[in-house]
Amino acid sequence: MKILAFDSSAVSASVALTDEGKLVGESFLNCGLTHSRTLMPMAKQLLDNSGYKLEDIDLFAVSAGPGSFTGLRIAVSSVKAMAAVLKKPCAAVSTLEAMAHNLPPLGNYAICAVMDARCKQFYNALFTVENDKITRQCEDRAIMVDLLGGELEKIQDNIVLVGDGANLAYELMRDNVSGLTLAPQNLRFQKASSVAQVAEMQYNRGETVKAATLMPHYLRLSQAERELIAKNKEAAKK
Amino acid sequence: MKILAFDSSAVSASVALTDEGKLVGESFLNCGLTHSRTLMPMAKQLLDNSGYKLEDIDLFAVSAGPGSFTGLRIAVSSVKAMAAVLKKPCAAVSTLEAMAHNLPPLGNYAICAVMDARCKQFYNALFTVENDKITRQCEDRAIMVDLLGGELEKIQDNIVLVGDGANLAYELMRDNVSGLTLAPQNLRFQKASSVAQVAEMQYNRGETVKAATLMPHYLRLSQAERELIAKNKEAAKK
Repeated sequence: MKILAFDSSAVSASVALTDEGKLVGESFLNCGLTHSRTLMPMAKQLLDNSGYKLEDIDLFAVSAGPGSFTGLRIAVSSVKAMAAVLKKPCAAVSTLEAMAHNLPPLGNYAICAVMDARCKQFYNALFTVENDKITRQCEDRAIMVDLLGGELEKIQDNIVLVGDGANLAYELMRDNVSGLTLAPQNLRFQKASSVAQVAEMQYNRGETVKAATLMPHYLRLSQAERELIAKNKEAAKK
Repeated sequence: MKILAFDSSAVSASVALTDEGKLVGESFLNCGLTHSRTLMPMAKQLLDNSGYKLEDIDLFAVSAGPGSFTGLRIAVSSVKAMAAVLKKPCAAVSTLEAMAHNLPPLGNYAICAVMDARCKQFYNALFTVENDKITRQCEDRAIMVDLLGGELEKIQDNIVLVGDGANLAYELMRDNVSGLTLAPQNLRFQKASSVAQVAEMQYNRGETVKAATLMPHYLRLSQAERELIAKNKEAAKK
């Protein structure tokens, strides 16, 4: 099975192509340019360079959230369009679960996947590595940094921070949480190759969706929606 | 410091750009197409996509060996040419040391970096991960599979196989060596991002070379050279 996977959930962007579980190619960029400019050219170059055609793809995968509102929409809309035209299934992968799979399932440690959600919050999920497997310990969530720190203090294993919020989380929690480590630079950020890896597992469990029903998974309302609700409440009081 | 790093030492090819230790971008291909066709377009696309110019690069890095004779020459010649024209230093990185750095320095395990050198040999070096550091345990070498298996049997830690020879080494040694694991697909093959990582360490130790003196490091004579020596010996007998 051939999977074309996309990630533009935060500051980095990447595209990966796998064929029967083998990573055929991947392009990764973390340079601050807007994803609407970089993502589709990267996909085209990857297919051209590897000798594959878009029509060859059996499954379109995307990190569907959590993440930045605009970032998620860029990759999700791109995947929706390609899958709809070619009538192929999609896999909506958790951004946090994908980034946990950047790390190898070797030894015993905990993985704390974190994205900066602003307002002293992180988008987060926890995983454990045991018996050569990565296992999810909680649902994706938006969590205040103090609450997250409190949970991590109770973990006895080494804890590896991964994701675009890893540096900030490390700085905020290093004094209170022991055994905290940053994933190395080459494995720290969201990677489409990990999105493809999780997508293949979801496909094998029958967890794919049609292009029409593929949606970004936000964990919070957008700022515009929050402000509208506050405004309506204010108006109702008068 | 901006590093542009290349790897075309075996079946895969990749280019990576780092800036002050941060991975700005990477393109990786493992699709069987010849590196002379894919490597330079990948480099140009990476620079164009990230908004960097070739003139911005401070250090050109390359996995200089061991590896396939033609593969090594493609990346080494490309780097030689760019560094010579722009009068910039080069870092000749061990292919085996670079691939060990695909893996994170978390926990305690041994890394066995292996490339298929044919004739029942592997190009190999051993490393240990301890105290958040990857430490080399022996020089790069060409070694018979039986000898390598004998050495690995004595290692008590888990041993992670990495490199384009990992699958073959795993099949040949799994029955005799305990604790043997394959690096996951996304970290198994040579990566230019790891070449850049090792190049930065070499730069900090003052271990760079001029373009004119950059050379591929073969661990064996080429087949043509071995055949010439055999022919000359035969002729000398007569």
